[in-house]
Order: sequence, then C-alpha cells, then structure tokens
Amino acid sequence: MEEQTNLSSDSQIKTIAHELAKEQREISIGEFFVRNRHLLGFDNQRKALLTTVKEAVDNSLDACEEAGVLPEINVEVIDMSNNRFRVIVEDNGPGIIKSQIPKIFGKLLYGSKFHKIKMTRGQQGIGISACVMYSHLTTGRPAKIISKIHPQKPANLFELTVDTKKNSAEVMKEEEIIWEKSHGTRIELDIEGSYQKGPQSVDQYLKQTAITNPHVTIIYTNPKAEQIIFPRATEQLPKKTKEIKPHPYGIELGLLLQMAKETKARNMSSFLQTEFSRVSASAAKEICENSGVFPNANPHHLNREMGENLINGIKKTKIIAPPSDCIAPIGEDALEKGLKKEVLAEFYCATTRSPSVYRGYPFIIEVAIAYGGEQTSDKQANILRYANRVPLLYQQGACASTESIQQTNWRNYGMSQSGESIPIGPCTIVVHVASVWVPFTSESKEAIAHYPEIIKEMKLAIQECGRKLSSYIRKKYKVGEELKKRGHIEKFIPHISEVIKNLLKINDSKKEEIEKLLAVILENKRGVIENIEAENVEYDEEFAKIGREEYEDDSKKGKDDGEDE
Amino acid sequence: MEEQTNLSSDSQIKTIAHELAKEQREISIGEFFVRNRHLLGFDNQRKALLTTVKEAVDNSLDACEEAGVLPEINVEVIDMSNNRFRVIVEDNGPGIIKSQIPKIFGKLLYGSKFHKIKMTRGQQGIGISACVMYSHLTTGRPAKIISKIHPQKPANLFELTVDTKKNSAEVMKEEEIIWEKSHGTRIELDIEGSYQKGPQSVDQYLKQTAITNPHVTIIYTNPKAEQIIFPRATEQLPKKTKEIKPHPYGIELGLLLQMAKETKARNMSSFLQTEFSRVSASAAKEICENSGVFPNANPHHLNREMGENLINGIKKTKIIAPPSDCIAPIGEDALEKGLKKEVLAEFYCATTRSPSVYRGYPFIIEVAIAYGGEQTSDKQANILRYANRVPLLYQQGACASTESIQQTNWRNYGMSQSGESIPIGPCTIVVHVASVWVPFTSESKEAIAHYPEIIKEMKLAIQECGRKLSSYIRKKYKVGEELKKRGHIEKFIPHISEVIKNLLKINDSKKEEIEKLLAVILENKRGVIENIEAENVEYDEEFAKIGREEYEDDSKKGKDDGEDE
Repeated sequence: MEEQTNLSSDSQIKTIAHELAKEQREISIGEFFVRNRHLLGFDNQRKALLTTVKEAVDNSLDACEEAGVLPEINVEVIDMSNNRFRVIVEDNGPGIIKSQIPKIFGKLLYGSKFHKIKMTRGQQGIGISACVMYSHLTTGRPAKIISKIHPQKPANLFELTVDTKKNSAEVMKEEEIIWEKSHGTRIELDIEGSYQKGPQSVDQYLKQTAITNPHVTIIYTNPKAEQIIFPRATEQLPKKTKEIKPHPYGIELGLLLQMAKETKARNMSSFLQTEFSRVSASAAKEICENSGVFPNANPHHLNREMGENLINGIKKTKIIAPPSDCIAPIGEDALEKGLKKEVLAEFYCATTRSPSVYRGYPFIIEVAIAYGGEQTSDKQANILRYANRVPLLYQQGACASTESIQQTNWRNYGMSQSGESIPIGPCTIVVHVASVWVPFTSESKEAIAHYPEIIKEMKLAIQECGRKLSSYIRKKYKVGEELKKRGHIEKFIPHISEVIKNLLKINDSKKEEIEKLLAVILENKRGVIENIEAENVEYDEEFAKIGREEYEDDSKKGKDDGEDE
Repeated sequence: MEEQTNLSSDSQIKTIAHELAKEQREISIGEFFVRNRHLLGFDNQRKALLTTVKEAVDNSLDACEEAGVLPEINVEVIDMSNNRFRVIVEDNGPGIIKSQIPKIFGKLLYGSKFHKIKMTRGQQGIGISACVMYSHLTTGRPAKIISKIHPQKPANLFELTVDTKKNSAEVMKEEEIIWEKSHGTRIELDIEGSYQKGPQSVDQYLKQTAITNPHVTIIYTNPKAEQIIFPRATEQLPKKTKEIKPHPYGIELGLLLQMAKETKARNMSSFLQTEFSRVSASAAKEICENSGVFPNANPHHLNREMGENLINGIKKTKIIAPPSDCIAPIGEDALEKGLKKEVLAEFYCATTRSPSVYRGYPFIIEVAIAYGGEQTSDKQANILRYANRVPLLYQQGACASTESIQQTNWRNYGMSQSGESIPIGPCTIVVHVASVWVPFTSESKEAIAHYPEIIKEMKLAIQECGRKLSSYIRKKYKVGEELKKRGHIEKFIPHISEVIKNLLKINDSKKEEIEKLLAVILENKRGVIENIEAENVEYDEEFAKIGREEYEDDSKKGKDDGEDE
C-alpha cells in the first residue's frame, strides 16, 4: 500500500536500481584469490611457508610418478631475514615443455589433473600458481623456474608472475641455459613467511610425507642450514593408477544432459558404454529398458524428461562398482611400518578398507593406531590425517576424519572420552583417504568435506582398528589394576587409623594394631576400592575415595568383583 | 648417473614430458565449482536447501538496505516429493535492471560487493549463481527470476541457468510481465534437497537471522506448509555503512605496485592521499620522507625497491586507524535483547569491542553470553556464530570463534572445561564478526579463517563477558556449596562410624556417641571437604572423598579455606 501512494520514494528507488547496476562488475579469479588468499593456505606467514613447500613438493611427486621415475626431491628453505624466505624445490621428474611453463606456473585453474578421474596429489590446477602469486604479492619478485626434458636439450629458464587481472603469466625473462641435470624441474620463490619447528612445520610435513611415501628420497635444508635426509626405503614405485570414466551411479541430471550434448556417440547404447565406467552392452540395454529410452535414440536429443527417466533407469539397474585400479592405497603393512618409524608405541594396528563410492567417485579409507609407549596419556590422542598420501596439517577441527573419530565410542575400546570428543590416552590415530577426487573443504586442501559416505567408511575402519586395540588394552589394564590396588591399600590405611586414633583417643600401639587389622580386612575386600588417585590439585592435597556401599552391603561384593574384570 | 648412461629411458621421459603437456588444460570456474560444490555449501541435500535459502535471503537483505527500504522477505519452501523442493524468495527491494539479471544470476564471480570495501552480507559474487547452477545440475530446470524496479514499469521475467563451460547465463525465456508488486525481486529455484528441522535447518537460520536483524520482517512457509512470521521489532534500519579505501597499514608490496601502476594520480603524494584511507597531505609527506621517495615522483615509475622503501616508510609513519563507519555492529543492548528472545537463561551479558584492523580491513567483534535457566548443564556450551549479521550454522570446528572460545580458560569464570575444549555448562555463547571483508574458510561462508588479529580480539571480547559471567557464577556457587556441604557431611558420618564399630567391636550406643562427635568435628572442619559427589557409576555405587591432609596437618586449614572463597 505504502509503495503505491508514495511515488516520489519509488522514483528514487528506480534511481537506486540503476545506481546499483553501475557497481556490478566481473571479478577475476586472480583478484578473488588475492583477497581470499586464506582459501589457498596463505592466512598467516608460517602457513604460507608450509603451503609453498607443500604445493611444489606435491607437484614434483606427481610428475615423477606419472613418468615412472623414482622421486628424488631437493627442498631448500633459506632465511633471507626480515620474514623473507627463499624456497627452492628441485626434482628429477620428466620436466615441462617450454610452452607449458608459463601456463602451469602463471595461470590459476590450469593443469592436467582436473579433467582426469584418477588418484593424484594435485587436482585443481591452482596450487603452484597461487604460490607464484603470493610470492609476488609479498616480495614483489617473480618466480624463477628451470625445467629440462632431455639430457641432450638445453634447459629453459623463466622468470614470471601471475597477472591477477588477466589470470595469465607475466613473463619477465625467458632463456635457454645449461643445466647439469639430465631432466627435472626447479622452482625458486621468494616469499614472506615465518619458520618455526613443531606440529605444523615444513619439517613435520616432510617427515610425515616420508612415512606414507617410502619410495621417495627428500633432501631437506631448513632455514637453520641443517640438512635432513629422508632416504627412500623401497625402490618400488606405488602401483600406477589408471584413469577411469565416471560411474553411472554418481551422475546427476545436469551433468548427464551436458554429457549427452557433447558425446560423439551416435546412439544411447554406445553413449552409455563409452562415456561411463562399468557399463557393458548388456548393462546399457538394461538401463534403456528400465528407463523406457530407445537404445538407438540420438543422445543429442536427450531432454530433461528423458534424462530423468534415464537416471531412474540407472538406479534400477545393477551395475558393478567402479574399478579400484584408479586408486593406490598405502596398504596395511606399509602403513603400520611407516607408523613404527614415526611413533614409539607398544601396540600398532592398521586397516585398509575395500573400495567404496561417493558421488560416483571410488575411494579407499585406511586407518592405523599406535598405542602406549612414550605418548602422553592425559592428553587427547594425536591425529595424523592424509589425503592421497599427502599429510594434512591444518584445519583438523573441520575434517571428516576428526568427526569420524569423535563419533566413535572409544570407551568401548578401553579409552577415555568425554561425550563426542577426541579420546584421551597415549594414542596416535592415522586416517588416510585415497580417492580419484578428494573433496577438500577449501582450495588449500587442509580438511576433507563431510560426505556421509566417506564418514561412514572412516568409522568402519576406525572400528576395525578399535577392536584390535581394545583386546590389547583390556589385557594391559587387568595386570595394571592388580598392582594399582595393592598400592592404594597401603596408602589408605594410615589415614583411617589416624582418624580412629583421634576420635577414640587411643594410643599408638593400639593404632598399629588397628592398622594391621585394616590391612587384612581391606586386602580381602579390595574389589570395591577404585580410583584412589591424586586429585583436586588446586588445593595441593590428595583425596582418597571410599566406596561406602562396601560397609552397608557385603553381598554386593561378588557382583562388583565380577564387573571389575 | 643412472640417467646419463640410460639414454633410452630418457628419450622415453622426453616423450612423457610431451605426453603430459597434451593433457594440460584450462579449467573453467564453472567446472571447478560443479566438481567442488561442497566449497559452495552443496555437499549434502539438507545443507543444499539451507544454502539456497540463505544466499537468496542474504542478497535480498543487502539490496533492501542498500536502497534504504525496510526489508519484507517472503520465503517459501515447497516439497515437490522425491527429494525435490521449490525455493521461492521474494523481496521488496529496489529490483534489478533488465540487462543485469542474466549476469547476476547466471555468472559466477560477478557482483557489486567484491570491489567495495564496505560491510555487506554478500561479498564474493558467487552465491546466488551457484544456487542457479546447483538447481540445474540436480533437477535440470532453469531458475525463474522476476524483478521490477518501478511501479510504472512492467516487471522482467527470466528463465535462465549457468553455462558452466563459458561461465555465462544461458537464457531460456525472457519477457515482460505484469506483477502486482511495485518493486522487488523474486527468485524461484527447483533443487534436490532434504528438509529437516533442528540446529542446522532453514527454520533455525531464519530464526537466528531475525535475532540479529530486528528491522526485518520474514514470512516463512516451510515444506510442511506451516507459516512462521518473524515480524520486525524496529522500524530503524541499521546505520548505513560507508565504503572506504584500503588502509596503508594493510597494504602488501605486490598490491602497492599494482595500485601505483593503475592510479590516475600524477605524483606520489596525491597517489597516497587518493588511493588510501586516512592519508592526509601531511601524512603523505611524512611517508615519503620516511621512505626516501620524492613526493612528486611519478607513481607509474614505482619499482620494487622503491615500493619496499615505501612500505617501510608507511610502517614508520603514525597513521590513524581506518574509519569505523564502514561497519555497523549490532550493539551490546540489541545483542542482549536478541539473545533474550532466543534463549531462556538466568543471566545475560554482551560486549561490543572497539574497531580493530587485520590486513588493513577494519572489523568489530561482539560477544554475548546467556547462562543458566533451562539450558542443559552437562553438555558443551551452545555456540551461536554470526558474520555481518548472518548466522553461521556449519563448520563450527573450523571457525576462528570456536578456537577463541577453546583458548579461553573458562575455569577462571567458574565453568568446567577439559583442556582446551569448549566449556561445559548451561551456557550460550554468541560471537559476531562485523567487517568490510570477512575472511571465510570457504566460498560457502560457514566459518571464519584463523587470522591472529581476529582471534585476539575475539578472546578479549570473550574475556570481558567471561568476567561478568564469573561474578554471577561465584555468587550462585557460594550459596549452593554451603547447602551441598551440609548434606554431604550428614551422608558421610554413618559410614565412618560403621567402620569404627566393625574394627573396634564397639556397641551401638558407643557408635552413636562417635557419630555425634564426628558431626561436631567435621562440621567445624568442612572447609577442606570438597567434591563429594556420586562418581564411578560403573559400579553403581557412590564414592566419597576425604582430604587426607586434613588429619595430617591442621595448620594448612587456614590456607585451604582462603582458597575456597
């Protein structure tokens, strides 16, 4: 009502709509990520240093494995003072041909891995060009890249950065040079950063990388000029993974319509067989029957209604799970061995689940546990997270693996846990997701998104390990409890006798007699004496507990003892 | 060595470098986000429904406020069965001119808010076009948009979707229609989703939105056809915020060099004054002096060395903090009132900090606490997170506000807390970040990135509220403890006397005498008896604690009593 009578205000509103239109603009992907650099892992200087090393090393490992070369990676981080560091990563990979260098390092959203359904470390085509962009943003310097693809060819040197508005490389220098290496790639980046050892450091990242990548040699020189060598433990490259087509079960209507529009297949049956994984001629026939679509219909004419029918038909058809040779899990043995190298514990176990599928993408969950030893027992368990063999050091709270651990009832396995939180105890829990497409919660690939299918598999893997852990803890607990109780009884007696002495004003010899008597009685009945521990430190005192029921109803004792087992 | 002798393997490697090059491709932003839809809030059906409503409502609120119109938003979610929902959001905003409609709804990374430094709900130009994309992907249907900018003009109707490969609108229908509304915008989207009430539901999002936006009327019809109206509580629009320039303290070298390249200013002094916030003529002069740069130098000639000097010069110059009129906080009173509407508690408090700066962007932190009442006391405190008045319902674990709460020592304020975790108790904690640029951990804007400056301010705000809470809890605790202790003493005596009777074989009258004696002694000394609670439920028994030191050293008692206060 108000609007119709108040025309002057409306003509003002008209102006506003036009006014607002003037401010509408396209946002370049470069500008977007400069502003949102924390999405890429550059929200603080320490993390920026880690991210830079990580992106370069991950790329090197992918390139070597793709070429079938045993990776030997040199990582050097030089302190240039004033919070500036030079990061150098050099590999013995296949090298990059000249024309591709500016695109790979100077353009966001460019790469070879995005369009392939296959397990690789990199997947988005953002990582390394984001490092180049960050480097230029903070130090104004271009990235220096050297790459050589054959011993008889010269190497190519580029100095370049990302033009964020155009999202393309700005090349400052380009020349052929002599490089002693027969093939490989070297990148040199100057960045603002901060170096600090500890759980989220470059050192830790490389150490954890060595665990899940036993075929890699890393020679690392840290900013303190200490050289740390992680030598390879095996000459065996991980099983080479194969690229697959999408599985029909994961396909959504919009994507199906687009694929049908773009396919070279002339009829529906061949469209289904050529564009999808695991669709045989007979499966294609069955899908068409189940959807009421003609097998020789032209896929280019697929409209929304037919598409919906096709999706329903797919759901009704039994199609075998996608092949798992697109994924190379670490394996139970290798994972357990890796963990033994890293964590000094008493008990180790590992589980590799069979492949499962989310949104049509196959994935495999692996879990390992190391318990006891030198690990602190009054803190939350230590969690090591991996995705496609790459350690994830940040955003633990946001990760599906953390949620899976929290949702598991660790009390069942003999660990303490308050509500749905990380269990408390001397324990390291490793969770590894291997997949053709790992759904990260951000472009910086720090945490895994909460897909229900993934969380379910994680929980099953944790439970498998948990049961193994449980039988170990129970044995250990039984022996420990026996010793603990004896100790407690001894601590306990003098205080009771002291109370009695004060109350009844008896003398010391009578008191000693009572103590002996108490020792006999309590030794016989100790099943109900529990948890006599130093507590309430705020008062600098130790408090002891007495189970009152003991004195009220001796008949309960049998039951209590039974539960004590 | 190996490589130089083994030429055949190298020529194979050469092939691989060329082979790999063939697979390198550009990734369109549309393809990227279809694959990474969880980055946009579409990782499961329930969240997808919330995200769709949220993006549309946030846009409507921004548009209304920008135009100075009191927002009246109609939200309708219709269950179309088979996990399909129709989402309709209609506002009384200024409308969108015809030529802009396809861009705003059909192109990712397009909008009016990214390039402005100003507090708005939307900021990235992704949200609503992502919803259009998701809608088409899951149901194959285009979005239907109606917008009208003036009562005397017809409305424009569009049916469109996003062409993900080209990242531009694909318009299916475009026509002028009669619409009874005098101005406003309506969007209709069919999506796959799932509706469920509860903490992360559309209902909850709208309820929490109403709390921090008391000037908004929302008429909501949920999929169960229940209509819920959140009427406005005030006719007062939030203070209109002003756009600002970047502050020199937040500028990095790369950005400075780019700004210098693009500026229209003819000399350094005017460059500094026109492109930055809070740089007066005298401040510009001082910066130039401190950096050894001529005030009349041409900014287009600024090279890296000069740029570095300029940045150092800026650091040495005292420049006043950025203006805070670009931010409109909710305010302590309004926040407390909002909380009172939402949470039934005994005690409320709120704090609005003064503005602070991260990376040159001003921000304000607000915190409120509601304690006691009907809230459960054995669970973790309930956390309500907001960014620029928008409730954040997902990714609590990944949010800077959660980290700030965990890093606070709540034991100081009388709440229980195990290690660095969320405190346990009957408590709701609200954290609001208001900023010209909120750094979210992903495009779906669910959690705030861990910038140290932001966490620091959050902790200070929490501490302010914590102290207020503390004095309330202590008062309450003191009264409660007094009563509790008396109760415990009474429970405690029969058991001690029973022990003594059994040990010394005394008769019942002697036992009664001892009980009286015990009552007097323990009543006098109860200062050291603490935490007498039912514990160790596994044994179905209650255990009581005795402070042993009590009997060993009476002189400590004074000290203990003192600490007990």
